[in-house]
Amino acid sequence: MSAPRFAARIERTAAPPIPAVRAWAARYAGAAGPLLDMTQAVPGYPAHPELLARLGAAAADPAQAGYGPIEGDMPLRAALAADIAGTYGADIAAEEVVITAGCNLAFAMAMETIAGAGDAVLLPTPWYFNHRMALEMLGIEAVPLPARAEDGFVPDPATAAALIGPATRAIVLVTPNNPTGAIYPAATIAGFAALCRARGLWLVLDETYRDFLPEDAIAHDLFRDGAWRDGVVQLYSFSKSYCVPGHRVGAILAGPAFRAQLAKAVDTFQICPPRAAQAALAWGVPALADWRAGNRAIMAGRADAFRRALAPLQDWRIESMGTYFAYLRLPEAAPDAEAAAERLAVERGLLCLPGSFFGPGQARHIRLAFANAEVSTIAGVTARLAGFA
Amino acid sequence: MSAPRFAARIERTAAPPIPAVRAWAARYAGAAGPLLDMTQAVPGYPAHPELLARLGAAAADPAQAGYGPIEGDMPLRAALAADIAGTYGADIAAEEVVITAGCNLAFAMAMETIAGAGDAVLLPTPWYFNHRMALEMLGIEAVPLPARAEDGFVPDPATAAALIGPATRAIVLVTPNNPTGAIYPAATIAGFAALCRARGLWLVLDETYRDFLPEDAIAHDLFRDGAWRDGVVQLYSFSKSYCVPGHRVGAILAGPAFRAQLAKAVDTFQICPPRAAQAALAWGVPALADWRAGNRAIMAGRADAFRRALAPLQDWRIESMGTYFAYLRLPEAAPDAEAAAERLAVERGLLCLPGSFFGPGQARHIRLAFANAEVSTIAGVTARLAGFA
Repeated sequence: MSAPRFAARIERTAAPPIPAVRAWAARYAGAAGPLLDMTQAVPGYPAHPELLARLGAAAADPAQAGYGPIEGDMPLRAALAADIAGTYGADIAAEEVVITAGCNLAFAMAMETIAGAGDAVLLPTPWYFNHRMALEMLGIEAVPLPARAEDGFVPDPATAAALIGPATRAIVLVTPNNPTGAIYPAATIAGFAALCRARGLWLVLDETYRDFLPEDAIAHDLFRDGAWRDGVVQLYSFSKSYCVPGHRVGAILAGPAFRAQLAKAVDTFQICPPRAAQAALAWGVPALADWRAGNRAIMAGRADAFRRALAPLQDWRIESMGTYFAYLRLPEAAPDAEAAAERLAVERGLLCLPGSFFGPGQARHIRLAFANAEVSTIAGVTARLAGFA
Repeated sequence: MSAPRFAARIERTAAPPIPAVRAWAARYAGAAGPLLDMTQAVPGYPAHPELLARLGAAAADPAQAGYGPIEGDMPLRAALAADIAGTYGADIAAEEVVITAGCNLAFAMAMETIAGAGDAVLLPTPWYFNHRMALEMLGIEAVPLPARAEDGFVPDPATAAALIGPATRAIVLVTPNNPTGAIYPAATIAGFAALCRARGLWLVLDETYRDFLPEDAIAHDLFRDGAWRDGVVQLYSFSKSYCVPGHRVGAILAGPAFRAQLAKAVDTFQICPPRAAQAALAWGVPALADWRAGNRAIMAGRADAFRRALAPLQDWRIESMGTYFAYLRLPEAAPDAEAAAERLAVERGLLCLPGSFFGPGQARHIRLAFANAEVSTIAGVTARLAGFA
């Protein structure tokens, strides 16, 4: 008689980080003003009122309460395919888009499709903690590909090439990046695509934040060459772009061979994605194009406000800042990231994530999701950080 | 330069079965009357109108569009805990319930928590195909535990004991069963619990169909002994009980040590379950108790109708029938299950799932989800099956 055991891999996996920060927040007594939450990436404005109305109408519809197609409802697949086609100047068919119950599940299912226990995937550091957690649980080695502050946290294909071994199956890029906000140049992305093609690896692009790129920026040219279908997989989230993270809808764009394997994971893990939100988003993707573009401007305004808020602080350095996130270097005299983030939460009511949550070598950084707060609120960051160390 | 590869395990996993049957349906020309779909388990009546109204109101609420707690919103956790407490005569706290984005994901996450590549789990056959697919993708061996027709498809703990090896980590029971509909006696479930306790294994109970048990039936006594927390995990689905499979909400009931590990998987795979449906269901669980009880009677009426429909057919045998499903033995002269199911679909417009989808030794069976159809429709099954072989 012995107690039943847990999977060795799940025991090795770190605890979810966001609840730990929320626990720090609960200890904040309010001395520095209202709690300022810059942890989780949530747009600091509501969803469009007509999208909300359509979400409501769809959820009240008994037709949307039933099971739907495993890979998502065709109207949303078609809408996102058209949006991708327009955004990237490419030919994309509705069938090439698979709708998922959120982008975290999209990543996990994509990894299940590509690799198994004993295989390896290159993941630039700092990495998105849930990516690393998913790989660890699946027994897939996450090989750190260091992205350096002096390179604007943009990883280098030549560095990656040297890290590829016989077990490597894929390279994952998150651009615009979480946690650094860095926007990878199109040439860098092309370099990674060429490397993957040459070495027989999948290139998995998580473009969750792509709708917040500056309007004139083209993320990359990969989809203009039909060969992407044999080696590139793109992940997308509706959560940030449409302010609906609670509805859990994401997507995977992939070629036919990939989708044939992926369908097994999709059927097994999600059966179908949530239906009502799909119906509303199928309307929203084309109809809210201008609204999304307007949000880009809001984000740019918040980025400016954040830079202004940090400007008076000699000892704090914005090491990277782009879409959604700023990645700060801690003052020399400050404690390491986890202790610093705890103190900022408990003493100053500023919630951020310590760099240590994002992988090796990040102990002197914190991530702030400036996108969460209005310009007037962001101005208050100055006082929260001043004289911290 | 070589094409990137797929995970060996996903390549070995079978394709999702339901789309294959839908493809057969598309070839039906209508000769025998309207298509009669008894494949996927979907209640053949709509959700309660007030639940639909509340689903709509919640989905239109911007507050429900945001992220929620990883393990689910507390009102639904509390509501389900109270429901479990009442149903099983046990003490259950809200914190012991974890809400998931559907019960398939609940199963996959529970397995991730318990086992990894190289471990093994005992799964009675016939098994639920997505259970087997999940284990195969995770590299966990699904050890078939034969449940025999002559035992009413109820597996035997003594048989299971002989199959336990050093790699075994859990036994999974689905009761009421999918695909056979068999309701495992409380004594059998207790026997499996004792076996698991003695051998240091987890007992995972998938009770997706428990709300359709006869009203006087108590499924099992396990939760009356607080020791369940160290060895038993229960899975639940809101999909069938509340007719909302498209909203993707399930649950896991587990003790504190299990939940501490599970939280890592939950955070990584789902971040949070869909919010709006949680809000509506928190109302529905207590408020619709009588409605659920009424549906039991509807199901019983459909079961009777199904028995009547089969009675005139000498060559067809109902080998098992309980909650939701009937598991039929094919006539001697009929082809094996997959060919038979295809012919029933294409020639007679009757959609069912071949036993071969449910694991080894099932080639002479088909599963019909009689719960999907109204009594008047079920009567038509006689003509679809008559003179088939």
